[in-house]
Amino acid sequence: MAGSQASHPHPYVPRDLHLPGYVPCFLSQSNILSVFASFTVILFSLTWIFSGRLKKTKVDRLLIFWWAFTGLTHIVLEGYFVFAPEFFKDNTGFYLAEVWKEYSKGDSRYVGRDAGVVTVEGLTAVLEGPASLLAVYAITTGKSYSYILQFAISLGQLYGTAVYYITTILEGDNFSTNSFYYYAYYIGANFSWIIIPSIISIRCWRKISVAFQVQSQTKKHKSR
Amino acid sequence: MAGSQASHPHPYVPRDLHLPGYVPCFLSQSNILSVFASFTVILFSLTWIFSGRLKKTKVDRLLIFWWAFTGLTHIVLEGYFVFAPEFFKDNTGFYLAEVWKEYSKGDSRYVGRDAGVVTVEGLTAVLEGPASLLAVYAITTGKSYSYILQFAISLGQLYGTAVYYITTILEGDNFSTNSFYYYAYYIGANFSWIIIPSIISIRCWRKISVAFQVQSQTKKHKSR
Repeated sequence: MAGSQASHPHPYVPRDLHLPGYVPCFLSQSNILSVFASFTVILFSLTWIFSGRLKKTKVDRLLIFWWAFTGLTHIVLEGYFVFAPEFFKDNTGFYLAEVWKEYSKGDSRYVGRDAGVVTVEGLTAVLEGPASLLAVYAITTGKSYSYILQFAISLGQLYGTAVYYITTILEGDNFSTNSFYYYAYYIGANFSWIIIPSIISIRCWRKISVAFQVQSQTKKHKSR
Repeated sequence: MAGSQASHPHPYVPRDLHLPGYVPCFLSQSNILSVFASFTVILFSLTWIFSGRLKKTKVDRLLIFWWAFTGLTHIVLEGYFVFAPEFFKDNTGFYLAEVWKEYSKGDSRYVGRDAGVVTVEGLTAVLEGPASLLAVYAITTGKSYSYILQFAISLGQLYGTAVYYITTILEGDNFSTNSFYYYAYYIGANFSWIIIPSIISIRCWRKISVAFQVQSQTKKHKSR
């Protein structure tokens, strides 16, 4: 049937983006956000209770939450995007498809399947997602690779975010439906993934440098 | 004059790539490679003599050479590419322009100014280049941040290389003039930047993990 190929008009910029089979969002912005907020609150409660029983420090308890949160976001949310290139045709109201239909109003390179965006999201979902869950395990059990692992993932997140923003500028920075979506989604939704990995990287860098100072002092003591 | 706007036919794929003002290579492939090989040999000799006087281990001496080599390559060669978007119009036979005219036969996204390629090369030239020279200093003077710095740069190099190859595949993997250039330039010239950063990352990961094992044993000793 010819009718099944007819597209709804899409809300994305550039306006001439060709999206055959596009189906508009079923959920409202507030619905989408409240599901994500509920997931965050539930995850925070669970990790806080769990880490409290293990008598971890407050910083470790916050880190356990962060790595569980960012790991699940990478694997579930970003993993879906990477492996569902036709999410914009979804007509079932499936939550993960709705998220990316909505987010694409802030950056249409998602719905437009820009190679740079898919690459960064692919590396994030496939490598950094599972590595983040490994970080939960490493902090919980006090592994000696805990800091270097957290540093590696944070640096990967920062590198990915840098590629994400620099490619936008080089490609003309004209992928937002309007300036509300630009600041709320394109800037706002990614902001945590600049601030938090920066803080964690600096903390790990310091902890690792101190460990080597301790090691070299221990050697000096022994050699006396 | 209309004549000054007339382009020479270019050797790049895709054939419809539009390069107004293109000027062909002046230097041959063997000329370009022998200059680069001479630079490498001279740099190796200098760093080997210099690091020998400092009574460094063989591994440290090789690492000092590698970081000096990769740092200068990032800053000079890749830095030129990033900040000279019109290198393909160079009609003076300038060496750095010749390198990129030649390399583009293996990957025309360089001469075509692909956003992903420019982004990765920009991060490499501006961040990883100077950081590599800092690594020379850190190894030479035995700084406590030496391993975490080397780990950070190596991971950045690996992330950049991953973005480089994955975007190629997503964009159709058809940017080489022929399969000789594909394997010699696109694969061959980047190969060292997969192997060596992988080895260095693994080495640093192990060294850092051991430092934390030493630190936790020292704490146990003290608390007895």
